[in-house]
Amino acid sequence: MGKVFVFGHKNPDTDSISSAISYAYLKQQLGMNAEAVRLGDVTNETAYALEYFGFEAPRLIEKAAPEVAKVILVDHNEKQQSVDDIDDVQVIEVVDHHRIANFETNDPLYYRAEPVGCTATILNKLYKENGVEIPKNIAGLMLSALISDSLLFKSPTYTDQDRAAVEELIAITGVNAQEYGLAMLKAGADLSGKTLEDLVKLDAKEFGINEVKIEIAQVNAIDINDVMNRQADLEDLLYRVIAEKGLDLFLFVVTDILNNDSIVLALGKEAGRASEAFNVTLVNNTATLKGVVSRKMQIVPVLTEALK
Amino acid sequence: MGKVFVFGHKNPDTDSISSAISYAYLKQQLGMNAEAVRLGDVTNETAYALEYFGFEAPRLIEKAAPEVAKVILVDHNEKQQSVDDIDDVQVIEVVDHHRIANFETNDPLYYRAEPVGCTATILNKLYKENGVEIPKNIAGLMLSALISDSLLFKSPTYTDQDRAAVEELIAITGVNAQEYGLAMLKAGADLSGKTLEDLVKLDAKEFGINEVKIEIAQVNAIDINDVMNRQADLEDLLYRVIAEKGLDLFLFVVTDILNNDSIVLALGKEAGRASEAFNVTLVNNTATLKGVVSRKMQIVPVLTEALK
Repeated sequence: MGKVFVFGHKNPDTDSISSAISYAYLKQQLGMNAEAVRLGDVTNETAYALEYFGFEAPRLIEKAAPEVAKVILVDHNEKQQSVDDIDDVQVIEVVDHHRIANFETNDPLYYRAEPVGCTATILNKLYKENGVEIPKNIAGLMLSALISDSLLFKSPTYTDQDRAAVEELIAITGVNAQEYGLAMLKAGADLSGKTLEDLVKLDAKEFGINEVKIEIAQVNAIDINDVMNRQADLEDLLYRVIAEKGLDLFLFVVTDILNNDSIVLALGKEAGRASEAFNVTLVNNTATLKGVVSRKMQIVPVLTEALK
Repeated sequence: MGKVFVFGHKNPDTDSISSAISYAYLKQQLGMNAEAVRLGDVTNETAYALEYFGFEAPRLIEKAAPEVAKVILVDHNEKQQSVDDIDDVQVIEVVDHHRIANFETNDPLYYRAEPVGCTATILNKLYKENGVEIPKNIAGLMLSALISDSLLFKSPTYTDQDRAAVEELIAITGVNAQEYGLAMLKAGADLSGKTLEDLVKLDAKEFGINEVKIEIAQVNAIDINDVMNRQADLEDLLYRVIAEKGLDLFLFVVTDILNNDSIVLALGKEAGRASEAFNVTLVNNTATLKGVVSRKMQIVPVLTEALK
């Protein structure tokens, strides 16, 4: 078998980068010529984790087919979140923790999804099932992914299985997870030096829900006003994105990582239905979503149900 | 959690029935109120296996939603192969060994697919991963599924992982797999007392490949002529099915389980493209497919590639 690319979703977060590196390493130990690559810029948060544990960022690719025939997806499966030429390569494996949608194969494959808070939790099992020891620095990356996806173990997506993985990974790395985790999240929430264009692209995902085209961008912040005091310019920018991509709805979600609430800015022709879905009234296009920190568990399913 | 149904595909084969029973039992041991059910009549082959190992056939259901909110799919994922009201229930788990297509969820789920020859091979792992011992009679059903899907260990779908599962299951059950397996396959290939309507429905699956609507029925036989000497009446029947379902192609595949070849009867407006795909000339609408015994590995991917 030729080389196989392993990558997470576009606008990669810490789980996508960490899982690409961690799973590529496991597959290499099992004899596969696997290379971790990425589909976008690494965030400040991810850069902090990579540097702390002594990794370079994986290589950025624009297309897969010119270099490989087969790929492995981690931390995503939906086509629009994957590499642009995904239809020109064969997906031989998926390791993921999201819903399954807009995904189809010609051939049987290895697909491992579990309803847990982080891909790293599943990878921790796969290392054990395959009898491969997790190196200390890879365990650090996997722990970083768990901290990131759980907002330091506080998100409702954080399950008992994630907790068990965290305990095992802490035992391997020996880091103080609370101290390291807060520093990592703060590095990610440091929005100084970020343009509005950066913020909109940082962690944005597209979804198609019953013919409704939606993009949801999420930004973590220490102080929500760092973002919201630029609302007018932000709206100009989002309306341009909506027009260019033909979106029906753009949700820009700013999450307060210390208090675990979010502010949503909802634009587009389905903004009304979105506010109804969350049972909030939009004031100046915005509303507070109390206790909402998880796009996957607290936003996408609510919208899906409402748009049925 | 209320009761959860566990079922395989419509026109259930031995793997679908066996896996529903085997996985429901495992989930019960793990505390779930799981019930194995079925979406169609059991075949003579499956009936032989059930009786040999002391099981009743699972209960037949037409719909799931009137009784349960959540279901687990085994041995399939494509919507058109599942229960009619699949959109009205939540799929919380899938254990399968087929391609993924026409499948979508609102929420994260447990999805375990592996490119192996039989669902039973994956279930054998799941029992071990969960530390649950496989009872002797369940091991017998799982072994029956492996014999069925591999045509007594001869199909190209039969992998090293299937072989490993077979060895473990034989050790638990203590049956002579060759002797038992041949008797079971012969029970399934005994077509006496079967009407043509029975044969067409016995193991038929629908596929949508790039807007082309296809049904592929497969029948195992000891003597192919038992079926093919009724070709004229069979064609009358298939043309009626094609018209009623609006199919573009019907492939009726008769597999010689002793010699491991198949005869295909191809009808419908895409019959020409199908014969090109297999590089054969249809004579009287039929052709021999040398060495072809697996719909999943030797028929569906070839058609998919040809219909791109």
